Amino acid sequence: MKVKVVANILEANDRIAAENRKKFEEAGVFVMNVMSGPGAGKTSLLEKTIQELSGKVKIGVIEGDIAGADDAERIDKLGIPVVQINTGGGCHLDANMITDVLEDLPPLKELDLLIIENVGNLVCPAEFKLGEDMKVMLLSVAEGHDKPLKYPLMFQESSALILNKIDLLPYTDADIGKMRKDSLSLNPNLKIFEVSCKTGQGITEWTNWVQTLVK
Amino acid sequence: MKVKVVANILEANDRIAAENRKKFEEAGVFVMNVMSGPGAGKTSLLEKTIQELSGKVKIGVIEGDIAGADDAERIDKLGIPVVQINTGGGCHLDANMITDVLEDLPPLKELDLLIIENVGNLVCPAEFKLGEDMKVMLLSVAEGHDKPLKYPLMFQESSALILNKIDLLPYTDADIGKMRKDSLSLNPNLKIFEVSCKTGQGITEWTNWVQTLVK
Repeated sequence: MKVKVVANILEANDRIAAENRKKFEEAGVFVMNVMSGPGAGKTSLLEKTIQELSGKVKIGVIEGDIAGADDAERIDKLGIPVVQINTGGGCHLDANMITDVLEDLPPLKELDLLIIENVGNLVCPAEFKLGEDMKVMLLSVAEGHDKPLKYPLMFQESSALILNKIDLLPYTDADIGKMRKDSLSLNPNLKIFEVSCKTGQGITEWTNWVQTLVK
Repeated sequence: MKVKVVANILEANDRIAAENRKKFEEAGVFVMNVMSGPGAGKTSLLEKTIQELSGKVKIGVIEGDIAGADDAERIDKLGIPVVQINTGGGCHLDANMITDVLEDLPPLKELDLLIIENVGNLVCPAEFKLGEDMKVMLLSVAEGHDKPLKYPLMFQESSALILNKIDLLPYTDADIGKMRKDSLSLNPNLKIFEVSCKTGQGITEWTNWVQTLVK
């Protein structure tokens, strides 16, 4: 019975996601759904991406959190239009939450790239389409190399994987070779970037790739 | 409508959790539900706890993961009875999953302490009672000091917070004072331990406390 309930929720969500998708396509805006476990560095990646693409790509941001507006405040400081969604306990963003906040952003036609930062959760966000062009995920090397095989769905659903906090590699037991290998075994098309949002290492390679995707 | 569905699921779960609770009480086994985001070090904490309490406390373990049996294999190596639950996509353990695997453990009367390692997720596991005496959570300092206010429920529901990976503190920007302060603002009764499962720092303080709880 429980499985059926989940299926119904997913179906309803997919329908709304398809409506969002149509709006994004008509406006010509590229939409990225950024996911990870808590504290893998999603907001830091957004900050670095915004700084690097400043003046080249018109960006808008939707921040998803259970509570608080810390992340939206960090993006607002960079002069980028941003709206914060608080899910009030919900562990992922639903497509209808995105629909609801679109009117709080500039008209979509004025944007090249809309970045949606999902709730920090390595599980549920991967199940819910938002209408995005692409899912991107982060994994902090401090989380350990066993994560891909233990949380396979997000790796399978994502187009790109950012291995973040590589500045911490010397101080952890994480085997980044195994992270790459297991991730690719789940999703051979996964584009992998090794990045440190703290030192800036690898950011340009990432943003160069993003630029090729944005019209 | 969606909220109603979630409420029904939670009610059904609470009923089964109460049945588990009764079984645990009758057997005189203390049950700990261990939660955290992915890669905060739950299994490492279990390993250290088992090693430290070896010969003093009879321990059994239930491992919860979406996929794979890596964690159960790590516990099995220590000669401790362990059973692995694979949720097959589910982002948390439900009470009925616990009921189902109890027969795969030694009789509860022969155990002093049953440790349940939940799915790595800082959100949903906090909503689902399993019949435990106590919820315990971990937060890796590498996840950053903004986590308590962004994921309040787990901090509110837990009796103890393990701040793990303190060996990484010098290499991160994390403010452990803020972690403690914000956690206590959410839950003034939270017992906080600063631990490194890698170096062993702080483990004895933790296991000494666990011993006071186990009959």
